[in-house]
Amino acid sequence: MENKPSRRKFIQQTTLASAGIMLAGPLHILAQNNNTIDMSKNIKSRGYAAKDTSGKLTPWQFERRPVGDNDILIDIKFASICHSDIHQMKGDWGTQQYPQVPGHEIAGIVAAVGKNVTKFKVGDRAGVGCMVDSCMECKSCNYGEEHFCENGKTLFTYGNPDKNAPSGITQGGYSNNIVVRDHFAVHIPNHISLEEAAPLLCAGITTYSPIMNANFKIGDKVGVAGIGGLGHLAVKIAVSKGAEVYAFTTSKDKVNDILSFGAKEAIVVDNLDKLKPYKAKLDYMISTIPAQFDLAAYSSVVKPYGHFTQVGMPVGFELTVSNIGLANSRVNFNASLIGGIPETQEMVHYCADNKVVPKIEIINANQINEAWTKVLNKEARYRYVIDAKTF
Amino acid sequence: MENKPSRRKFIQQTTLASAGIMLAGPLHILAQNNNTIDMSKNIKSRGYAAKDTSGKLTPWQFERRPVGDNDILIDIKFASICHSDIHQMKGDWGTQQYPQVPGHEIAGIVAAVGKNVTKFKVGDRAGVGCMVDSCMECKSCNYGEEHFCENGKTLFTYGNPDKNAPSGITQGGYSNNIVVRDHFAVHIPNHISLEEAAPLLCAGITTYSPIMNANFKIGDKVGVAGIGGLGHLAVKIAVSKGAEVYAFTTSKDKVNDILSFGAKEAIVVDNLDKLKPYKAKLDYMISTIPAQFDLAAYSSVVKPYGHFTQVGMPVGFELTVSNIGLANSRVNFNASLIGGIPETQEMVHYCADNKVVPKIEIINANQINEAWTKVLNKEARYRYVIDAKTF
Repeated sequence: MENKPSRRKFIQQTTLASAGIMLAGPLHILAQNNNTIDMSKNIKSRGYAAKDTSGKLTPWQFERRPVGDNDILIDIKFASICHSDIHQMKGDWGTQQYPQVPGHEIAGIVAAVGKNVTKFKVGDRAGVGCMVDSCMECKSCNYGEEHFCENGKTLFTYGNPDKNAPSGITQGGYSNNIVVRDHFAVHIPNHISLEEAAPLLCAGITTYSPIMNANFKIGDKVGVAGIGGLGHLAVKIAVSKGAEVYAFTTSKDKVNDILSFGAKEAIVVDNLDKLKPYKAKLDYMISTIPAQFDLAAYSSVVKPYGHFTQVGMPVGFELTVSNIGLANSRVNFNASLIGGIPETQEMVHYCADNKVVPKIEIINANQINEAWTKVLNKEARYRYVIDAKTF
Repeated sequence: MENKPSRRKFIQQTTLASAGIMLAGPLHILAQNNNTIDMSKNIKSRGYAAKDTSGKLTPWQFERRPVGDNDILIDIKFASICHSDIHQMKGDWGTQQYPQVPGHEIAGIVAAVGKNVTKFKVGDRAGVGCMVDSCMECKSCNYGEEHFCENGKTLFTYGNPDKNAPSGITQGGYSNNIVVRDHFAVHIPNHISLEEAAPLLCAGITTYSPIMNANFKIGDKVGVAGIGGLGHLAVKIAVSKGAEVYAFTTSKDKVNDILSFGAKEAIVVDNLDKLKPYKAKLDYMISTIPAQFDLAAYSSVVKPYGHFTQVGMPVGFELTVSNIGLANSRVNFNASLIGGIPETQEMVHYCADNKVVPKIEIINANQINEAWTKVLNKEARYRYVIDAKTF
């Protein structure tokens, strides 16, 4: 932790400060709206669930736990589709319990708050990302890195064993509501739409966190490999932070979009030779490629002793690396996993303030399976967002 | 290159300075000894060569190129056995041309110098490591990183196509002499024996270079995984640089040796659970393991945002990494390949001055095959050094 860029403490302080400002509001009055919810009973929910490894979802009615003292109930308005949803439902990352509702890019309106909750009031706009609980006591949790809970208590938004969940596992956001511990929801400011905010909760923070940790200077050359849901946000974030962005894609028909996002160049890597002119040219590179790829070849575009971050998670989480290739590029390779709650809150504010929003297509629940197929075929442009009123 | 620790320039300056001091000697007089060598003719050589992928070597008589204007001829006194020799001869790293003489840890006495050579004189003690030529013009070569020649001209000591070599490929040090461009030999000072110096030329520089780049502070906790020829030198170098060293081995019977090398602890990793007590405890880690291993599990002993360097080269140079494991450890992974000539010279002086020497066993040429088997069985303690007069 000692080696971590010092911005971490700054994030926590500013987050606490904004929480303080919000606490000044008349929470107890608005909280009366809880009266419409029976806080002692399970919450009925409708969603789309995987029932097996087929990668097909079907409607499912299920229950969530009652709204506890530290919980909030969110009426989900939009939930977006992440490649990870598909990987996990198909069992690419290990055996799953079914039925399972995927979805960890969630935006909605707070419908009820537990009696200890001060962070939210009913009517607030709120988002939930990839995790819904942790120990909240260890060094990492206190440090705002709840996704690295040292007691192993990080609870991911779907598919994790959860004794409090009526179904025995956490159930995600492809549904009309969610009950979540208040700490694990973030505020969504009014100057960003809920449908545009939803994808930020995973795709946004997963790219924002390593890009911020890269500490590049304005004008530095930053590469982004894989221009899908995460990659297109990575381009936009890096551009907004002042980088000269080089985007590497395998899809020729994304070039115009990529340039419209502000990238300096869009390079179509239909074969690895296309990387050669960029050898050792970039200060930093982030890859969102969610599959095995030639990591050493891609890393060679980074200057010697620069850093390369992998955020895409392939089947089995496994990447095969040419050790001699990595030695030749002299690049430091790391992997990054989402980001903590304070940084997620910072990112949502940053994206709202700086008009960094995903390019989305809104679909109904009955179009989810078709959308998944398009994601797998690299046809998403660039994030499908499910209108939750169609569940 | 811009991100490289600033010590690089220092190395080059100090190396030039010591070369300057040596130039003050009466070179032209000693160079008369060249008269015993016909500089226009191929040099006859005796060695041990692989003839196929069996991993068995047999005696072979061959020729080396004439001693060119910028070359020196070294009478090899000792050559030591590196695991890489075995990997390459068996074809683990790609198809090979045979007969091929391995060996890139070479120490001997200069027997002839070309007319342009000022760096050495006849009678000097000299060492040769893993490379014998490069373009000498590109940025990397000028920077003292000839092993990363940007024109792709790095010529490795054995098995590389070489139009100047009578056999068509470079032939290594398991032999009684070698002809090499002067720049690619280093001086071996008098206060280290040639047999102890030989292993430094690969095992020494391969571990010294990343350990120096790690820039750890005195008292920092440094891990070394894999305690063979490279690893035991890594322990000694890190100890001599003031680190508190944690050595991870799979060989229980190496523990006493490891402690005698100055390590704080020797951990026998007979199963991966043995790593758990060290989670996030170390400032830096170097792995010399020359095979596939659970990189994410080993990297977890390094503090978040610390660095982990892999120098062992497995079959096919391939390492499979758990991306989620690496994300969880938050460790920067890099690979390192030997070191440049200026740094190799620095390392030889450092090891001589600080009594950092390998633990060796001297063998005759006819014991090479037996020694290779022991290396593969992890029975080497810790470097076999071949007495070249037995070729």
